[in-house]
Amino acid sequence: MTAQPLPLEQPGPRADGVLKYARIGELTLENGQVLPDVTLAYETWGQLNETADNVILVLHALTGDTHVSRGVVTEEMDDAARVAASHEGWWAGIVGPGCVIDTNRYFVLAPNMLGGCYGSTGPSSPAPDGKPYGSRFPQITIRDSVAAERILLDQLGIRSLRYVIGASLGGARSIEWAATYPELVEGCAVVASGHSATGDQLAWAQTQNLAIRSDPAWAGGDYYGSEGPVAGLGIARRIAHTTYRSAPELNYRFGRQPQGEEKPLADFNASRGRYEVESYLDHQAEKFVHRFDANSYLAINEALMTHDVTRGRGTLKQTLGRTHCNWLIAYVDTDRLFFPSESMIIAAEAPGNVEAHAIRSPCGHDGFLIETDQVEALLRRAFAEQDERLARSVGYLMAGA
Amino acid sequence: MTAQPLPLEQPGPRADGVLKYARIGELTLENGQVLPDVTLAYETWGQLNETADNVILVLHALTGDTHVSRGVVTEEMDDAARVAASHEGWWAGIVGPGCVIDTNRYFVLAPNMLGGCYGSTGPSSPAPDGKPYGSRFPQITIRDSVAAERILLDQLGIRSLRYVIGASLGGARSIEWAATYPELVEGCAVVASGHSATGDQLAWAQTQNLAIRSDPAWAGGDYYGSEGPVAGLGIARRIAHTTYRSAPELNYRFGRQPQGEEKPLADFNASRGRYEVESYLDHQAEKFVHRFDANSYLAINEALMTHDVTRGRGTLKQTLGRTHCNWLIAYVDTDRLFFPSESMIIAAEAPGNVEAHAIRSPCGHDGFLIETDQVEALLRRAFAEQDERLARSVGYLMAGA
Repeated sequence: MTAQPLPLEQPGPRADGVLKYARIGELTLENGQVLPDVTLAYETWGQLNETADNVILVLHALTGDTHVSRGVVTEEMDDAARVAASHEGWWAGIVGPGCVIDTNRYFVLAPNMLGGCYGSTGPSSPAPDGKPYGSRFPQITIRDSVAAERILLDQLGIRSLRYVIGASLGGARSIEWAATYPELVEGCAVVASGHSATGDQLAWAQTQNLAIRSDPAWAGGDYYGSEGPVAGLGIARRIAHTTYRSAPELNYRFGRQPQGEEKPLADFNASRGRYEVESYLDHQAEKFVHRFDANSYLAINEALMTHDVTRGRGTLKQTLGRTHCNWLIAYVDTDRLFFPSESMIIAAEAPGNVEAHAIRSPCGHDGFLIETDQVEALLRRAFAEQDERLARSVGYLMAGA
Repeated sequence: MTAQPLPLEQPGPRADGVLKYARIGELTLENGQVLPDVTLAYETWGQLNETADNVILVLHALTGDTHVSRGVVTEEMDDAARVAASHEGWWAGIVGPGCVIDTNRYFVLAPNMLGGCYGSTGPSSPAPDGKPYGSRFPQITIRDSVAAERILLDQLGIRSLRYVIGASLGGARSIEWAATYPELVEGCAVVASGHSATGDQLAWAQTQNLAIRSDPAWAGGDYYGSEGPVAGLGIARRIAHTTYRSAPELNYRFGRQPQGEEKPLADFNASRGRYEVESYLDHQAEKFVHRFDANSYLAINEALMTHDVTRGRGTLKQTLGRTHCNWLIAYVDTDRLFFPSESMIIAAEAPGNVEAHAIRSPCGHDGFLIETDQVEALLRRAFAEQDERLARSVGYLMAGA
């Protein structure tokens, strides 16, 4: 794992689905520490309209990135940009021309979370002394990332957000956006997420973090220049991934089948063959450790642990009572990490008649990534309701004039 | 972690709740390997009757031991035996004089599983060369442990089992007993368990095992004489313990409360205070690593992974169709490791009209240890049914004579 390079040159402004970088200056964190010269990486799709109010903010999950969807390959792009823009995104079919998040209509913005390893300032970024932060990277919270994103919006000239959309940790970010900047947020989608990290989520997160920190290759966080805590990060990913899938799905897909010709029954456990589900988790871990920085995992997982939209704001009803947005609350019915009841609680405490919608999936938490047809239908309905509400308020204003 | 000592001298035969040792000779394992000079440690309560048919076999869970309940302190006991017998057991109130498993009536036998670290031959035991087995300890299965226990029964002169009772991994052992020795088993209680390890259980087990094996202090399994893989074993325990409790219980008991005066929000994550649920898991891990051998954890967890009562026996219906016992099948309604449906499947496939009974608990899998009143009531009913059935069959025989 090497330190992340300094921001590249900017691609053109109409470069959809290609990483861009904004230097947003120093950021005072919730803990009072000042993080100097912060960079936020982001991707965009579509164009900001003249009134700067056609913006949809899409916030990624724990290990997600800014590449929500493909971009549009244009003449001006260099080869690297072409490759990046052509790459399938993690919410393919949701964002694009003619999609529910229609990039012919909306300007879509997807920032990498503060602390991340996909371009934003994080533990692998150079500190002022030119060396990676490593162990010197401060604790960041969901609110800190939202505050950084707020500055980015100003730099881009954005004046309001039609919808802030996030699932899982992205949902923690979106509800925090609505509560922190109610004057900017006109719609908020919180999918497969909660209003605060629960005791159960804290338990899973602690064990994952400990798996990384217990790996001697973590070296207290200062492992840059070496391979880093690959084993510990792989264990963390296995724990997390198991919580992302439902037990019935794992039982149905894999059961206790051996992997290929491997033989789990053997003379010694150390040399036995694997079950298929073990091979699956090995594969998940292997893919992951090559794409994610362990310190960023810790930084963002710890940020999720700090998540509590009510902190310093009274009850959840009081906290959400200050918002004025349309709400889209949805859960995956088989989710065993962010339980349906967490969405129901947000819906019950949000102002107005807000419903918690079910995404039906056999797959558990990851259903928000898998059941894109259902996500699309929910977003389509939510956008239509918002259009109607806006039309009514315009009609009311015109009637009153 | 030091190697386990050789078997001590035997206490008196009427020493209830005190560890005893049986040398059962060599054991040919399912994988064909021969384990020489095997010791099984066990405890007993009550006395074997003249017809040697008043026996109840109680089989412990993954990290359980033979001390199911207190013993009776007698004049002949030395001080060590007095202390051991006085110690509260893990199923206190279930086994004892006047309890549902009435030691005035039944002879209760609780063996430590093969591979364990509570007296039976396991990885920390001396191999023929006098050094601990360590990495040389073979793969053992649930069936191997049952086969060893069968030899112990012969040595003790036991001719039938009124009930074999186990929960969790103990339930895997009890269903395997019923399927392997149907001629001996008159009653079988399978509590919070399944007929085979599921894909989901394999996933959790793999990650736990990997946490131990990734700890450099595991040293390939040959760590005896040093502290051993304390960190890895602690991570394994945290994962396991979280699966043993329900999310609602963790949320209700701990939520996101800080531990005492500790401050989870801090300048750096490495130096932050803990949430209460983190302190709870730390405590669970700390207690555990001082009482359990990491290699035994691997051996028994791997044995659970091999669990499949149908292996080589056809379908589950065919497998259970060869049994003649009374069945007590029970699940904990909030169990997220051994799901209620697993008990329902056993009940559906067992011969006769077998019901899967609910143990109602907010606590998840560990409910079988916590809700002893409900366990007691279920056992009381099961024993009464068995008594009735035996009385009917005696009456039938007498009428025919």
